[in-house]
Parts: sequence; C-alpha cells; structure tokens
Amino acid sequence: MSSPEFNLIEKFFTHATAERDDVTLGIGDDAAIVDVPSGHSLAIAVDTLISSVHFPKETAPEAIGYKALAVNLSDMAAMGAKPAWATLALTLPDNDSLWLKKFSQGFSELAHQFGLQLIGGDTTRGSVLSITVQIFGLIKNNQGYLRSAAQPGDLIYVTGTLGDAGLALKHWQAELKPTTSDTQFLRQRLDYPKPRVTEALALQGLVHAAIDISDGLLADLSHILDQSQVGATLHTDKLPLSPPFKSSISKTDDLTVPLTAGDDYELILTIPQIHQNRAQHIMNSFECGLTCIGNIEKQSGLRCINSNNQTINLKQHGFDHFET
Amino acid sequence: MSSPEFNLIEKFFTHATAERDDVTLGIGDDAAIVDVPSGHSLAIAVDTLISSVHFPKETAPEAIGYKALAVNLSDMAAMGAKPAWATLALTLPDNDSLWLKKFSQGFSELAHQFGLQLIGGDTTRGSVLSITVQIFGLIKNNQGYLRSAAQPGDLIYVTGTLGDAGLALKHWQAELKPTTSDTQFLRQRLDYPKPRVTEALALQGLVHAAIDISDGLLADLSHILDQSQVGATLHTDKLPLSPPFKSSISKTDDLTVPLTAGDDYELILTIPQIHQNRAQHIMNSFECGLTCIGNIEKQSGLRCINSNNQTINLKQHGFDHFET
Repeated sequence: MSSPEFNLIEKFFTHATAERDDVTLGIGDDAAIVDVPSGHSLAIAVDTLISSVHFPKETAPEAIGYKALAVNLSDMAAMGAKPAWATLALTLPDNDSLWLKKFSQGFSELAHQFGLQLIGGDTTRGSVLSITVQIFGLIKNNQGYLRSAAQPGDLIYVTGTLGDAGLALKHWQAELKPTTSDTQFLRQRLDYPKPRVTEALALQGLVHAAIDISDGLLADLSHILDQSQVGATLHTDKLPLSPPFKSSISKTDDLTVPLTAGDDYELILTIPQIHQNRAQHIMNSFECGLTCIGNIEKQSGLRCINSNNQTINLKQHGFDHFET
Repeated sequence: MSSPEFNLIEKFFTHATAERDDVTLGIGDDAAIVDVPSGHSLAIAVDTLISSVHFPKETAPEAIGYKALAVNLSDMAAMGAKPAWATLALTLPDNDSLWLKKFSQGFSELAHQFGLQLIGGDTTRGSVLSITVQIFGLIKNNQGYLRSAAQPGDLIYVTGTLGDAGLALKHWQAELKPTTSDTQFLRQRLDYPKPRVTEALALQGLVHAAIDISDGLLADLSHILDQSQVGATLHTDKLPLSPPFKSSISKTDDLTVPLTAGDDYELILTIPQIHQNRAQHIMNSFECGLTCIGNIEKQSGLRCINSNNQTINLKQHGFDHFET
C-alpha cells in the first residue's frame, strides 16, 4: 500500500480528515489497523468514479473530491450505518499538486462533517483520472437496512427531491452551461449530492428496507422489490420535484428524468404504516423532508399510477426493464 | 454499490470464493456486512493494478486476477494479519465474458487457498483496464507487524529469493519472450507472486517489524528504518538469488535488480536475535526459506557491505535515494 515516488495520499491526506480513537494505525504502513466496537457489525462499500463517465471532465477538483466520498457515504446511509473510516485509491494522469490540494479539500470537508477518518490509500499513474473510495460504517445491534427487508403494507418514502441531478447531467451532455439560478441549483445537486446519513440514522428502528438512488427511482426500487420478493404501486403525482426542476423542464408532466435518472443520491425507504407518524415527525427537523410515494404490496411487479389514476404503461414509455 | 446494467461482480463472483460464517451480507446490497471476532483488530489495505503499468498488457487474465489479489494478500502477510474478506473495483474497456471468467478463476483460486470471501465490488466501463482490490485481515491480540517496530539488535530476514520478478520485467520491457525454462521461471515469479501469508502467521510472536517488497529491497527496508528511527547494515553476498536468476544475468555480481526491483512480494522481517533459531526452525517447513541478510542498528542510515567486506557507495551505483 505504498508508492514512495508518488505517495500523494500521505502528503495530502494525513491529518486532513477526522482523527478517531478506534484507528490504531492510519496512513503509512502496509495496511491500516482499526477496531470495531463490540455489539457492532461493519458495513463495507466501494464505488469508483471515472472522469467523463461519472462526472464532466471540467468538474472542479473540490467537487470531485466531495462527490467521490459523498456517493460512498450515501451507501452507508442506505444501510443505516454510521460512517467511520475510508480508503482512497487514486489513478492520476499527472502529478498536479494544485489539483490534488483542491481535491483533498473537497474530500476532507465532507469527511470532517461525518467524523470519518481516511486510513489509507494507493496512488497510481494512469491516463484516465479514476477514484475508488472504500467506506466503512458501524451498524449497531444488527439494525442495518437491507434491500431484502421490505414487507407488504410498508409505505415507500423518498428523501429530498428527484430528477435534479439527472436534469443537470442532461444539460451538461447538451453542452448547456448553468447560467440561471435554477440551472445552477441543478448543477449543484449533481456536483455536491448530500448523503442522507444523519437522516437515515435518525430513522433507526423504523425502517425496513432502504437503497440510495444512484441508478434511478424505478431501477433502485426494483432492486428492493426483487430482493424482498414483493411488488409496489407508485403514485407519480406524489414524486417530490424541486421548483428549479419544475421550471426547467419543458413539459412539467414529463417524469422520465425523476423516474429513471440516477445521481440524486436520495434514499428510498420502506417503513411500516405503524411508524408513519413517527417517521414524518422525525424528518420534520431535516431540510430535505420525506415524501410518501407509494406502497409495498404482495403482488409482484411495479405499477405506476398517474394523477388521473391511470396506470402508466412503463414499456410504452421506454421503461422496458421495469415492466411487470 | 450496484450497477444493474453491468453488474459483473455479482455474475462472476457470487459463490466463487470462500463462504465464511462471519459474513452477514455479501455481494448484492449497498454494502456488505461482516463481523469482526472479539479480541481481534482489523487490518485494511488497498492496491490498484493498471494494465501496461503494473503488468504487461498481454498478461493472461487468470494471472491478472491472481496477481490483483496476491499483492493485497502480501500486504496482509506484511502485517501478520489473517486474510478474511476482499472487495473488487473493476474498470473494464469492454464486456468480454471470456476474459472475465478467466480473471475470476485466477482470483477465486487464490481466494479459496486462503479462505477469503469476496464480499462486494463495483464494475465501471473505462478505456483502461484497472483493478482495485481492498483486503481485510484479522489481527489477534495486537500482534500486528508494524514498520515502526524494528529495534537495534534485530536481524534482518527476507523470505524466498530476490530479483526474479524484476528481471522478468526487464525482459518484458526489452520485448524478450520467456523461451527457456529459466526465463519461464522468472516470468512465473512476476505473474504469480506467492503471498507469504502462511509463513508470516507461522512466525507470530517472533517478528518485530515487517514489510513486503513491492518497491525493491532498499526502498522497502528504508521505510522500516525511517519509521522505526533506526539504521541497518546489509551484506549483499547474503542476498538470496535463485539459480535461474543467477544464470540469466550477464554479470552475477550485478546486484542492482535484487536491491532495487519490486514485484517479488517477498517479506522483509526484523526478528530479535533471541528468536533466531526458533524462526529458522519454523521456516524449515516452508519451501521459500528464510535468509538473514543484515542487522538493525542504532546508527541511522543504510550501509551495504559487499563480499570483500567493502562498503558499497550506493550513490555511485545510482541509489541516490538510499544514501546515508
């Protein structure tokens, strides 16, 4: 885990993130050594971001550093795990100190926010910028949120608003610059997704299944349905949409983006009806809010109902993968 | 941690590695969940291999899968940790099922050998093949081998032989094909390094400091010396060299490769003199052997003595970095 001629993790990240008592050995040996407190399990996730695939090439380095950690923190949120440590494997086209300094600032700011310590990493030279973050979180008393734990009768909730980041991505692909306050808001949502870690932990004890929306609402909800062997009905008129999103799309009834675009990193949570009021009450203290968009049902498949109470033919709308 | 359109980790690796009781949730959710047994700390390492940087582009996929895990297992060996789990982040230029099948075979074979379970991963499409493996090992009762733990009076040992992989790399760079049994042996050492995990664990209780040789003997020993704030004398006539290595270099007294080439993934271990006989006795049962090549000393710096008992001027030989 060292590369002496190019040991940038050590240079830019030692003492740049939280310093935790449960880290016996941090950056600088063949491996890090950490201690998991008793009564806790360890949640482990890994995500890779590649330039021009996962973010526009011209994205600010602070935003890349931020997002690389944010998408992994989002996985911890989706598990109901409290983030503890991370490692970082960086592949860099060149040794640009200024870029790295800014990248580490974006990463470190978010790490501090969630009390996370970077405990190790690896830097290699390669033609394409690539960032792999591995994250570790603690789950108390087997209270993790599994994709397989949804039950018929659960309500389906989402945090925040949907489609913002997806629309920003479309603008970027069409080479439209974010010039208005609305499009700047959307671009901010793409570049600086807010991992819903604190929100997820606040709901501990109330949640059955959870997943973060990285591939799109329909795709990610389908993972829960498949793994829980249940079905669902979604009410598309209940989808939470931000004012900038609504004013930026040509037809406000076009729900393709909020239904299928990823990158929002909001959470889908299934919560039994009995906890409905408690969950809403807890979430009142969080800015992002919590919106009920449907129900988990025994009957397999995913059904979408529009504002006229008509079933949307998902296949006709190009959502072949989600056809029941 | 999912990518439904391209979820190859799940396809090729579920049930392909060991199945461990301490894994509550493996591949297929936002994160894996594992349990660390009480009395144990967790060692965590990460290493990235990039095509044409860390291995020749034409390397067999089985060898790439093998090596990606081997170099990480080697980090566990260097910590005195027992390997438990791993995750895999793959960036692939294309969706070549045959390549992936062979890659997973090389990876899985080695995983089974060490009782290691792959618990998660991420696959992304990118122009350059890149493999990041994250590995987790268990350390009992704080018995990890730290780079900072060498003490004056310790003997310096290495496992196996040095320079084999480095010479194979030189041959590859000069576009020399491995056609003789000697050059085939060397290439085997480059493509299929043997992580010294079992050897390292067998020596538990006897070792002060350890590191694996990934950057070269002088460079890696220097890490121990720096972090332990000690010095050392090496006897170059004691360096263990394989018969194929000796017969393949033009001047048998040219020690540049075994002193500076990486890729052997043998271990440097510092062991107090009092444990010398016990360590040698234990290692008699391992094919790779254990060779004493020098001493840890209070005086800082690294001194190399040749067979005529003369100090080698490292700077004159181009080893500027290691000059005392």
